[in-house]
Amino acid sequence: MYSVLPQGITVETRVPASSANLGAGFDCLGLALDVYDDLTVSTAESGVRVLVTGEGEGAVPLDDTHLVVRALLRGLEAGGVTAPGLDILCTNAIPHSRGLGSSAAAVVSGLAAASGLMAKSGVRAGFSADELIQLASEFEGHPDNAAASVLGSAIVSWTDVVDGRPRYQARRLEVHPAIRVTGFVPGTESSTALTRGLLPDAVPRADAVHNLSRSALAVVALTSDPSCLPAATSDRLHQNYRAPVLPETTRVVAELRGRGVAAFVSGAGPSVMALHDQPLPEQSLVMASDLGFRVHDLTIAGPVSVR
Amino acid sequence: MYSVLPQGITVETRVPASSANLGAGFDCLGLALDVYDDLTVSTAESGVRVLVTGEGEGAVPLDDTHLVVRALLRGLEAGGVTAPGLDILCTNAIPHSRGLGSSAAAVVSGLAAASGLMAKSGVRAGFSADELIQLASEFEGHPDNAAASVLGSAIVSWTDVVDGRPRYQARRLEVHPAIRVTGFVPGTESSTALTRGLLPDAVPRADAVHNLSRSALAVVALTSDPSCLPAATSDRLHQNYRAPVLPETTRVVAELRGRGVAAFVSGAGPSVMALHDQPLPEQSLVMASDLGFRVHDLTIAGPVSVR
Repeated sequence: MYSVLPQGITVETRVPASSANLGAGFDCLGLALDVYDDLTVSTAESGVRVLVTGEGEGAVPLDDTHLVVRALLRGLEAGGVTAPGLDILCTNAIPHSRGLGSSAAAVVSGLAAASGLMAKSGVRAGFSADELIQLASEFEGHPDNAAASVLGSAIVSWTDVVDGRPRYQARRLEVHPAIRVTGFVPGTESSTALTRGLLPDAVPRADAVHNLSRSALAVVALTSDPSCLPAATSDRLHQNYRAPVLPETTRVVAELRGRGVAAFVSGAGPSVMALHDQPLPEQSLVMASDLGFRVHDLTIAGPVSVR
Repeated sequence: MYSVLPQGITVETRVPASSANLGAGFDCLGLALDVYDDLTVSTAESGVRVLVTGEGEGAVPLDDTHLVVRALLRGLEAGGVTAPGLDILCTNAIPHSRGLGSSAAAVVSGLAAASGLMAKSGVRAGFSADELIQLASEFEGHPDNAAASVLGSAIVSWTDVVDGRPRYQARRLEVHPAIRVTGFVPGTESSTALTRGLLPDAVPRADAVHNLSRSALAVVALTSDPSCLPAATSDRLHQNYRAPVLPETTRVVAELRGRGVAAFVSGAGPSVMALHDQPLPEQSLVMASDLGFRVHDLTIAGPVSVR
C-alpha cells in the first residue's frame, strides 16, 4: 500500500555538477563542481507537467521519460509513496554530454525532490545520503558522479555485491584549501555509451597497478599534499583507449600534463579538468581556447541541497 | 674519486618489518610493524666481517653477497665514499620469507648504515628519506616494503619512469589511532619469486577497477574511517592467483573476512595480517592456531632509526 502525498507541497533542490575519474580513479573518484541544476517540484491534483529552462531546453522529453521525472517517480516508489500529480520546473546550468555529470545530477535532483516531498509532508523521513547514493547509482551503474553530487567535495566511491545486487557506497574527502579547479569545456558533445565501448575487457596488470597506486595517492594529494596531484592523476586504464574519438581533448590534456599540470579527461569527456595550486600556463590556456574549449574557473561544491 | 671513510666510526640502525599490499593496494600500500632488524657497523682497517644473530643465523652468507653488505656497499658507492674495512653485526628479529619485508629491511639497514657512516664522519651528508627509498627500491623492483621501512607508519608508494629509469616515491600516512594490527605467521616459508610468477600479465578491467577503488578507500580507512577497512582490503588482483600455493593462508584470510575482519595476505605470504578496531573473533584465532599460525599483536612502527 502506497501513502499518497498531499497536494500543494513544494520542494526546491540544487544539485552540483561533477567530474568523475580524476585521471587514475576510473569509476571511483569524483569531484563536485559549482555549476548547478535547480529543480522545483510541487504536488498537484493530477498529471505530470515538466518545464525545462537552460541546458536541455527544447532537447529533452517533457513526459515521464524525462530523466528527472523517472528519478522522482523512482524515489517516491522507493519511499512507498505516490503523488496524484506533479508540477516540475527544471532550471539547468550543467551542460549535457560534456563529462560534467549532468545525467547523475538529473537523477539526484529527482530523488532528492522525492525525499524532500516525503519529509515535508510528514508521510515519512527523507532519504539518507547513503540511500540517495544507492538509488542514484542504480540509474548510472557506477557511483562516482552521483556520490559527488550527493555528498559534495571530493569523494571515493566503490561497489560491493550484496545478495547478488550492487551496493554503491562512497566517502567524502576534505579537500586541501589550496587546490583550484579549472574546467575546459568544448562546444561539442560526447556520448558516454560510445566512449565506454572503446574500453577493453582486459588490461595489462602493470597498468592496473599504475592506476591503483595513483588512485591511493590521489586521496593523499586531494586532502593533504597537492604537490602529488600530477602523479596522482596519471592514468593508463581509460584515457588512451578513448583518445581516438577525443582528439582535441587528448591534445589539451597532453599540453597541460607536459607542463606539469594535473589535467585529465572529465568523466568520459570531452571536457578537460585541471587541479592546481599555481596559475595555469598561459600557452596552455591559449591552445585550449584555439581548439574551441571555454575555460572556466570552478569551485569545489558542497552537497545537494533540498528545501 | 671516492672519499675514504676514517676508521673507528660506528653506527647503529634499527629497521622495522613491513607488510605490503594490504589487500587491494598491490605493490603500492605498505605498513611498518614493530619487529626490528638491528645493525651495528664500524669502519675497520681492512676486510668485511659479518656476524649474524637471530633470524638468518647460519643460513645467510657472511661475505659480500650478504644482502645487508651489498646494500651497505651500494650506499657507500652512491655517496661517493669507500671504507678500508667494515665490521658488521646483524641482530635480526624479522623472520625470513614470511611476507614481512625482511629483504627490504636488510637493504634499508645497509643503506641507512652507509648514510650514517657518511654523516658521522663528516665526509658528506647522509641520505634523505627519498634517497633511501629510491636506492632501496632499486634492489626490490617495487617501493612498498622499502618505503614502509624507511618512513614508518603506513605508506602509499608509486613508481614513475624518468629518463627511462624507474623513480620510486612514497608518502607517509597518519594512521587512525583506533587501528590495531594482528599478524598470523606460519612456520613455513614462501618464495616471493615463485608466487609472483603465478600472477597473470593481463587482468579483467572490472578487477582493476575493484582494486583501484579499494586502494583509494584504504587511504580513507587507514587515516580517518576504520569502519571502511574490510571493504578497503578486498582484493581481486593477486590473492586468488596465489591461493593454490598458499592453502592455509587462504583459509585464514577467508575465515577472518567471512566474519567481517579486514584480513589479507601480507606481501606475497604466507603470513596473514588483520587490521581491526574490535577484538578478533575467538573462532578465527583458534582456527589459525590449529593451522600452525602464531598470532602476534603488533604495533605500527616508526621510521628507520640511525644513531
